[in-house]
Amino acid sequence: MIGVATCSRLDIMELFGPVFARIAPGIELRPPGGVTRPEEVDFVLTFLPDAEAFRPYPALRAIFSVGAGTDAILACPSRPDGVPVFRVEEPDQAQQMAGFAAFHVLWHHRGMAHYVACQRKAHWQRNLGGFTPRARRIGILGMGHMGQGIARGLLALGYPVAGYARRPPAAPIEGVAYFAEAARDDFLARTDILINVLPLTPETEGLIDAAFLAKLPAGAALIHLGRGGHLDEDALLSALESGHLSGASLDVFRTEPLPRDHPFWSHPRILVTPHVASVPEFEDVARSVRDRLETLPER
Amino acid sequence: MIGVATCSRLDIMELFGPVFARIAPGIELRPPGGVTRPEEVDFVLTFLPDAEAFRPYPALRAIFSVGAGTDAILACPSRPDGVPVFRVEEPDQAQQMAGFAAFHVLWHHRGMAHYVACQRKAHWQRNLGGFTPRARRIGILGMGHMGQGIARGLLALGYPVAGYARRPPAAPIEGVAYFAEAARDDFLARTDILINVLPLTPETEGLIDAAFLAKLPAGAALIHLGRGGHLDEDALLSALESGHLSGASLDVFRTEPLPRDHPFWSHPRILVTPHVASVPEFEDVARSVRDRLETLPER
Repeated sequence: MIGVATCSRLDIMELFGPVFARIAPGIELRPPGGVTRPEEVDFVLTFLPDAEAFRPYPALRAIFSVGAGTDAILACPSRPDGVPVFRVEEPDQAQQMAGFAAFHVLWHHRGMAHYVACQRKAHWQRNLGGFTPRARRIGILGMGHMGQGIARGLLALGYPVAGYARRPPAAPIEGVAYFAEAARDDFLARTDILINVLPLTPETEGLIDAAFLAKLPAGAALIHLGRGGHLDEDALLSALESGHLSGASLDVFRTEPLPRDHPFWSHPRILVTPHVASVPEFEDVARSVRDRLETLPER
Repeated sequence: MIGVATCSRLDIMELFGPVFARIAPGIELRPPGGVTRPEEVDFVLTFLPDAEAFRPYPALRAIFSVGAGTDAILACPSRPDGVPVFRVEEPDQAQQMAGFAAFHVLWHHRGMAHYVACQRKAHWQRNLGGFTPRARRIGILGMGHMGQGIARGLLALGYPVAGYARRPPAAPIEGVAYFAEAARDDFLARTDILINVLPLTPETEGLIDAAFLAKLPAGAALIHLGRGGHLDEDALLSALESGHLSGASLDVFRTEPLPRDHPFWSHPRILVTPHVASVPEFEDVARSVRDRLETLPER
């Protein structure tokens, strides 16, 4: 079995080569330059493929994302129709995402930025009151694998949790209030901290715009872990500027890496992280690719 | 019913007066200077009482802590024997504590200090790998009301959790490995992130010293939410200096407020918060005092 590791951003070969050698010795993982017979390549392992990434390989049987998202792969012009695209979908990843989301909920709810700033000045100043989780309503935009993990984590920490999903849940989580598409305004009106983990699709592109943000209650915070394309970045800045939003945590951006002169970096009420909400363990990825390849029909 | 609000640190009267007036109008809450007949005072509401705080009131029926700890009250020389001391003990407080502990677990596990520092320099630098919660073992020192809340929260976020408790648990939490006093070294040896929520007693005073920290595995982190008196502060600094510990979150200190020239403030691997891990809602405190007073025997 021969796979090509290719990505416009990550050095997939360097990151995954040693792990595949250990976990899946029957699989030859190669960089594009190491392929001599392109017609023998069985699969591509990627995250953000170049436009022509798939072109050289006429007999692909599978495409694997090393992350939870497949939007860049699905949008790639050289992607051959009919070749299945797989993503990593493990309980572990949803729990990673849940921990990351919980961190940012606490960051905003408990005013942790204040304490980090105080520490720099050796200044002891306590904020008292308003810290009960039951008074801070969480809304999760997207109740798939990731959204469900986040809901479970925040319920255990005492927060009231609602989920917004296009389809009714297959297995509803006890204690989560579900809102369907038609009830989006109601969902937003009851959400103090909004966590976005939607996939990027033509329907969700640009969803979080000025009108959308205006429907959140005054003082709400945004935790944006989906895709850069969901968010109107200027609308977010305006909503923070006017005081309508109290803060935001942003892990994904229209342009990544976030350009050095982007106003998000220096905004006092924005916490920027570099697309690290959920980073699959390399071994999990290798194991999942290996197991999936075994289920593919023979060539 | 007449109560006196007194504390060496907090202005309890200002914080709680309006809430008591609303929630418990039958209770007169007064500052010490507002008492004309000390023999009619039924209870004292306090957190850190002055040494002579209880002396003026000969007929106290109860003493209330506005927090989860009663160590300063129990140690107060003017505390009359035989008068019951009550603390706030609500599910909400354990969940506040759980959220705060989860924040610090993620802070250390996911290297959030790195991202906060990167943001100041508009520097996009991802740490990849090692983020699965299952590979970071949590140990909770003290499995009472607070410790149990923390355990539930971190289990939901996918972390392996062990608890250290002097007594076997009355109602063990499924999924938590319990360690008794005799197995303390085993508990420490399997703990990557240690969370201290012990009460301060003569037995736990100074517990976290150099020998104790040395038993944690290399690279461990300490989240210290108990009481300042538990920790040998110099031992912690040495363990960070040698690299044995990777970091610490400290919410309680030998001297509070933490003195401006204390080395903790400027330490790059310590996150300081000003004793805010769990701050009971004022209304919960007032309600709990009111309800408890109703159960006391008549004078």
